[in-house]
Amino acid sequence: MALRLGIVGVGKIVRDQHLPALAASGDFDLVAAASRNATVEGLANFKTLEALLAEGPEVDAVALCMPPQVRFAAAMTAIAAGKHVLLEKPPGAGLSEVAILNEAAEAAGVTLFASWHSRHAAGVAEARRLLAERRVTGFAIAWKEDVRRWHPGQAWIWEPGGLGVFDSGINALSIATEILPGPLMLRASRLLFPANRHAPIAAELTFGGIPGTAVFDWRQTGPQIWDVAVETEEGPVLLTRGGSCLSVDGKLGEAMPDREYAGLYAHFAVLIARNESDADPRPLRLVADAFLLGERIEIDSFNE
Amino acid sequence: MALRLGIVGVGKIVRDQHLPALAASGDFDLVAAASRNATVEGLANFKTLEALLAEGPEVDAVALCMPPQVRFAAAMTAIAAGKHVLLEKPPGAGLSEVAILNEAAEAAGVTLFASWHSRHAAGVAEARRLLAERRVTGFAIAWKEDVRRWHPGQAWIWEPGGLGVFDSGINALSIATEILPGPLMLRASRLLFPANRHAPIAAELTFGGIPGTAVFDWRQTGPQIWDVAVETEEGPVLLTRGGSCLSVDGKLGEAMPDREYAGLYAHFAVLIARNESDADPRPLRLVADAFLLGERIEIDSFNE
Repeated sequence: MALRLGIVGVGKIVRDQHLPALAASGDFDLVAAASRNATVEGLANFKTLEALLAEGPEVDAVALCMPPQVRFAAAMTAIAAGKHVLLEKPPGAGLSEVAILNEAAEAAGVTLFASWHSRHAAGVAEARRLLAERRVTGFAIAWKEDVRRWHPGQAWIWEPGGLGVFDSGINALSIATEILPGPLMLRASRLLFPANRHAPIAAELTFGGIPGTAVFDWRQTGPQIWDVAVETEEGPVLLTRGGSCLSVDGKLGEAMPDREYAGLYAHFAVLIARNESDADPRPLRLVADAFLLGERIEIDSFNE
Repeated sequence: MALRLGIVGVGKIVRDQHLPALAASGDFDLVAAASRNATVEGLANFKTLEALLAEGPEVDAVALCMPPQVRFAAAMTAIAAGKHVLLEKPPGAGLSEVAILNEAAEAAGVTLFASWHSRHAAGVAEARRLLAERRVTGFAIAWKEDVRRWHPGQAWIWEPGGLGVFDSGINALSIATEILPGPLMLRASRLLFPANRHAPIAAELTFGGIPGTAVFDWRQTGPQIWDVAVETEEGPVLLTRGGSCLSVDGKLGEAMPDREYAGLYAHFAVLIARNESDADPRPLRLVADAFLLGERIEIDSFNE
């Protein structure tokens, strides 16, 4: 029998990804939505999670898709109400929030899934399997996209806690921490801050443990680049197109269909069935280290 | 029988605190030191930890007191050599380092002690005991000192990863996380960066979980302030002078003698005897969150 789901924070990511994935899901039955200023046709709609829980149809789980700055309070409310919780990435505005949510979910006996949608990209699982059998010598991440195209009007990404370019780059870090056999550590970072913004528009990271680099840039026009290139003694393992295309030892792979959010909700259902949680803080921890260690460079103002 | 200790990174904190505490310790026998450009009279001195381990007298443990930016590599070297490791605060330049050190120490079967010297201040243990029996309603931290007086010529504190004012403020956070009954979470932070520095000279933090505030400021002349004030329904619990003076319910306590580093080394000896580690990341995690969430305000240049 399908799990009854409520979705909170109806924005671009929900309409583009969550709703189509849920429409095709046999695991979840989406019955309600909560959003300050949006509604979803055919659902019971509410202004807030509190109203959904108080007046709405019964739900077993909630997917929290609002900006990270306000996600923690909603997650604590849902956990206190005994609901299983899916968090869009990043799982919190800070690491201490994630640690507290973990403890609260465990105490309440509900499932907490801090989701990283890029880990469900079509090539990631096979890349992980391959790299577990190889001797990795290094990696290079390039995650370059046009913020005007992908984040139109999302003011929160520029506010403190909005992460700026790391809102995208953390997807690459979620793939790297998933596929690389061994711990990653941030050694150095350079953060480019537009003079009129509280969050960086570009970043260059250097890693230790497994030596590697990452370049995140939101000023990319023309071709958009979301690549994780891993060098091994046996040959290169290359993920492109956000992880949907896997090329091994120079043999160009084919782009596979995007099933990220289908896989994400399938994993959520498995976690609930097993009464387990999955809240890996490593991608956010690397981002926090990038801000903690970061050399800050102010550049020209950015205007949409 | 005393544990043979080597000390690495002979700077102000070692001469002011570690050497006197070790001279009075029955648990440790300080036999060697390593420093690029300093020596300790009466010890076998080396330029590097590697040289100490290769050519020096046998040691059971090392105390790593160099700046955080270079502490990780030394800690991994010491762990690989099977030595118990004491880390001065902060335990690393970033949180991913601390997680990796924990795993490495556990795998090697050695003790890792990420020390927080302020937790051994004379009033802290009693404050913790009192607060465990009270209903805490909030707290306010004021940690204000003159950087010119306490950190003369320490260029590394201003570099990326040097933490700036958080190098002092993290001591207050190590006390707060030790004595407060319940999790702390960073809600917001304002960071004041001198135009010519890579690290903040002052910060204002707002906490959730237990509601509270912290003001860190390195521009404090005149009286120096290191206070943690906790409000409870039963009355105020006030730690002043860096935790050495405890005042309860308005009754002014007396400043007790400073035994921070004596207590720190006594705890290290107990950990080694029990084959345990103690590497609490919470103070550094709150600092990382302060940088991650921080609103950055540029102020006039700072010159010593």
